[in-house]
Amino acid sequence: MRDVAIIGIGTTKFGEIWDASFRDLGIEAGLKAMHDANLTGSEVDGMFIGNMSSGRFINQHHIGALIADYAGMASRNVPATRIEAAGASGGIAFRQAVMAVASGMNDIVIVGGAEKMTDVTDEATNSILDSATDQQWEATMGVTFASLNAMIARRCIHEKIVTREEMASMAVNSHAHGALNPDAQFRKAIDLNTVLKASMVADPLGMFDCAPISDGASAVVLCPLDMAKKYTDRPVKVASSAQASDTLALFQRKNITTFDATVAAAKQAYSLAKIEAKDIAVAEVHDHFTIEGILALQDLGLFKRGEAGKAVMDGQVMVGGKVAVNTSGGLKARGHPIGATGVAQIVEITKQLRGDADKRQVPNAKYGLAQNVGGTGSAVVVSIMEAI
Amino acid sequence: MRDVAIIGIGTTKFGEIWDASFRDLGIEAGLKAMHDANLTGSEVDGMFIGNMSSGRFINQHHIGALIADYAGMASRNVPATRIEAAGASGGIAFRQAVMAVASGMNDIVIVGGAEKMTDVTDEATNSILDSATDQQWEATMGVTFASLNAMIARRCIHEKIVTREEMASMAVNSHAHGALNPDAQFRKAIDLNTVLKASMVADPLGMFDCAPISDGASAVVLCPLDMAKKYTDRPVKVASSAQASDTLALFQRKNITTFDATVAAAKQAYSLAKIEAKDIAVAEVHDHFTIEGILALQDLGLFKRGEAGKAVMDGQVMVGGKVAVNTSGGLKARGHPIGATGVAQIVEITKQLRGDADKRQVPNAKYGLAQNVGGTGSAVVVSIMEAI
Repeated sequence: MRDVAIIGIGTTKFGEIWDASFRDLGIEAGLKAMHDANLTGSEVDGMFIGNMSSGRFINQHHIGALIADYAGMASRNVPATRIEAAGASGGIAFRQAVMAVASGMNDIVIVGGAEKMTDVTDEATNSILDSATDQQWEATMGVTFASLNAMIARRCIHEKIVTREEMASMAVNSHAHGALNPDAQFRKAIDLNTVLKASMVADPLGMFDCAPISDGASAVVLCPLDMAKKYTDRPVKVASSAQASDTLALFQRKNITTFDATVAAAKQAYSLAKIEAKDIAVAEVHDHFTIEGILALQDLGLFKRGEAGKAVMDGQVMVGGKVAVNTSGGLKARGHPIGATGVAQIVEITKQLRGDADKRQVPNAKYGLAQNVGGTGSAVVVSIMEAI
Repeated sequence: MRDVAIIGIGTTKFGEIWDASFRDLGIEAGLKAMHDANLTGSEVDGMFIGNMSSGRFINQHHIGALIADYAGMASRNVPATRIEAAGASGGIAFRQAVMAVASGMNDIVIVGGAEKMTDVTDEATNSILDSATDQQWEATMGVTFASLNAMIARRCIHEKIVTREEMASMAVNSHAHGALNPDAQFRKAIDLNTVLKASMVADPLGMFDCAPISDGASAVVLCPLDMAKKYTDRPVKVASSAQASDTLALFQRKNITTFDATVAAAKQAYSLAKIEAKDIAVAEVHDHFTIEGILALQDLGLFKRGEAGKAVMDGQVMVGGKVAVNTSGGLKARGHPIGATGVAQIVEITKQLRGDADKRQVPNAKYGLAQNVGGTGSAVVVSIMEAI
């Protein structure tokens, strides 16, 4: 297996983007990444695309071929593979691309993640999102992702793992960072009271505990580490990428105050990268709901069980704290165009490890981690990048 | 890169299966494949799932996690990755699984393909199928897959590449073989007149030129070739698996009487397997429409351009002919549960190379090929298997 490097990154702005189509967004992110890697495009020999539901959001399946076509890759018959794993679509596409390069099957691979969510009604959006829960045993009972996460939050509060205020501080942290990211959907810092007094979505989760509906696309270019200097003088090494599954339905778990798939993927990712949680300087975690962000901090080993909420409240996950978390703004403030999220996380970590993160730069970061979740912890990818 | 072997296969019957759900079908195929490979399940360390549109056919996304869960793999956090590439979903899932084992990332991988198409109305089915054409430039003009293939057929007749009767004989061939396959959707031989006199779908294609709507699932188990004898005394080697893209929309092609992606994937597959087209004894080709079957025979190099139709008419693609094609019954008679098809092709080729194909057995077959197509030739996978 060869070592793999990230040699290019690109992203669109995230948000309600009314003047660009799905394909416009995908191409914008891809072209930016190729330009960043100093590629003309003819070097690319493989493509992977993360997307949850173009089939329902824009009535278009087969977007691997679509993206290959519109990126000018079809004329050279470059293979393009679409991955779907709900919220983890982008992260798994990234991992497949890493595997393709590590194995020697491909040399220059572009990974894109994209979702256009705002072209359908709110009712349709909810139906599409909830189709990633277990249809037979969850959705038919009226359960939604917000209510599933509310149950987790209630249990965590009951077990004194986190307080309502600590949970809310996760959103304060994400917004503080998002205000510094020009590509973020929400660029406004908020205070704790704003989160606590927001309209209720699913008790105890209010509107500011939930990530928004977003349009957007992100892309990264990978190649073997020993070829990277040919394209860029600032490659970032992919130290590891690990994936794990859990039950689709939440009620089948022994314990809903931890995501076993995060624990399993993190364990493997640290082991492959030959580092420990304490070595991580910057992390992007999947805060689709604030409680998911808190769980991630614990399950990744960044904080001890029961101490993550306090750490967030104390500013320990801000830039300058113990470990900077969601410096991009996270799903909450950067936005969450589902299939793009896992790739956007890699874009942010790469920026941090290159020293390109401007006002939100973490000083001297050596290792960065991205944690991307599908469903209620049903599929998790943890990838670790290393500054070289 | 390690050599990879197929050590287990399993499939459900294909057809209108009203008494089984999507998950029932997937599990049936998977359990059969694991049983065939003498596995208990605890050996599996990776899963890949090919599926086109569970999101619309059964309102369920995130089926990687679903299948991992219901296969009992979630308790061990086995990663499961879903691939979507319209009709090529199964074939690309297979290729990703081959890559996972070849690279050393996984040892024992199960690949499943599944689709449950008959739980929605015919109108919904058509809308879902057509969402794999280019929505912006094809579907909005009223184009369907049948009409796209009818245009190809018209052009091929005009250029004297094939006659209407020769095209029809492709369906006769598939039905003759399907009659011998206990798992096929249609198990009845038909004559040329039946095809020619059938109700028109899109001139010149009639009902018997088109594959049916089907439910079904298939699965195969892969491991490194040098571990295969531990599990089975009849492993089949994966000699190569290659994938290529073309434009999503048909009108953008220079020539619609050939699928460039088939030509490109076949060239690479033969090269990697170190064989030529003439070495292939048995092939499963993607005859979603009879004209696609004819194109495949030419583009794969099994027959010269303009000679494939005559060869089919002359019985040269029947068992006992020059090269046995679609001994399973093909998409036309075995059925076409979209995501399952690419995996079902591998199941049939494995049966043939093991000598397990009963009344449709090709004698002494050394090399078998599977060609799986997404869209109108927009994504093609060609895999070659070798008897050892």
